[in-house]
Amino acid sequence: MQQSREHTLKAFDQDLDRLRALISQMGGLAEHAIGEAMRCLIQRDVEAAERIVENDQKLDALEIETERRVVQLIALRAPMAGDLRDVVAALKISGVVERIGDYAKNIARRVPQIDQGGHLEPLSLLPEMARIATQMVHDVLNAFVNRDADAAVRVCQRDQAVDDFYDSIFRTLLTFMMENPHNIGQAAHLLFVAKNLERVGDHATNIAEMVFYAATGEHMAERPRTAGRS
Amino acid sequence: MQQSREHTLKAFDQDLDRLRALISQMGGLAEHAIGEAMRCLIQRDVEAAERIVENDQKLDALEIETERRVVQLIALRAPMAGDLRDVVAALKISGVVERIGDYAKNIARRVPQIDQGGHLEPLSLLPEMARIATQMVHDVLNAFVNRDADAAVRVCQRDQAVDDFYDSIFRTLLTFMMENPHNIGQAAHLLFVAKNLERVGDHATNIAEMVFYAATGEHMAERPRTAGRS
Repeated sequence: MQQSREHTLKAFDQDLDRLRALISQMGGLAEHAIGEAMRCLIQRDVEAAERIVENDQKLDALEIETERRVVQLIALRAPMAGDLRDVVAALKISGVVERIGDYAKNIARRVPQIDQGGHLEPLSLLPEMARIATQMVHDVLNAFVNRDADAAVRVCQRDQAVDDFYDSIFRTLLTFMMENPHNIGQAAHLLFVAKNLERVGDHATNIAEMVFYAATGEHMAERPRTAGRS
Repeated sequence: MQQSREHTLKAFDQDLDRLRALISQMGGLAEHAIGEAMRCLIQRDVEAAERIVENDQKLDALEIETERRVVQLIALRAPMAGDLRDVVAALKISGVVERIGDYAKNIARRVPQIDQGGHLEPLSLLPEMARIATQMVHDVLNAFVNRDADAAVRVCQRDQAVDDFYDSIFRTLLTFMMENPHNIGQAAHLLFVAKNLERVGDHATNIAEMVFYAATGEHMAERPRTAGRS
């Protein structure tokens, strides 16, 4: 009986490791997609932007695969307490990572729209904002793999920097629009790009809360809410 | 044994009914929040808008309660196949409904920003767009409660109307901005309001896909993707 239980435990750990590997794989794809979408935006690379949109279905497929494995794992291994929290967190996190991929796709779809036109100053701020937001995603998924609640808390603390970038870009874009109505179309698209990146930071924060709960069984202390910015 | 199994089945059905009631309750709150946020926007009711923001924590609490019950239900009843799909769908749907509430909160937070200023034509289109989107949410949650895959498919078909509204409002707002730079700040906020409502329609569609999968065990046939609009 003892041996059988150990066997079950080991099988569960292997299943969970595979789930974590799936989430890491999804995270890698999403990070790459955001970075590549920003490169396409800056270099007006319309062709590569189309490939980002096509590639997003890989993330959709991996999310479905994650859900399939979660359901199978729950049915076969009947995990309890912390194990069950981990499995449920994996399911929820894969959904959030898939949405982060959607933001990359949304940004890529705007590339043809801002294709024409001259230099727009906010274009030089957006990549740095993207770097911070994707680094948050990278670090919070590592925190999940390592069940590291402290690392998850540290990721949340960095969301303010993303929000500050957003506020600055929002104001700059509005000024650009006012200075020259010719800029309005492009600037409107860049407003949404900035908003998408701000949401990536929010989603990294959401994942951090899920990681914290999975690791500790407690909900993270209330932080000042930053959602719903201009 | 037979009696014990029947007892377990009945207990499971009761648990599932309670889960469904929770989701319906969340849906009712989210629908009301969107409708009320639109009313505040039109009537520039800054005070009531603040209450929408405060009330959003009810939805957050209900999402946590749903997750708690899902985890408990899985641990106690070990549901299989279609039952397990229903339970997992409940968990995912509660997350989406909570996000729909966030959109209402985001709209409410913009009310003070568009408080001053004269008549903006898109303001008259937004409430109708909101009505269609919230009706989709209402109907898709009914489809979940009734395990009605056909009704879920019909909800998806209505997303095009929301997208058409969005495209029209986007163009109108850009024209407004170009005609008078004085409108730019307000119009930028309304762009995001329109985007939020478009996302509510997308989320109703996402829920419809979850309902379809829970009810049939099959993934809904690929629809033309509408995400990532201007």
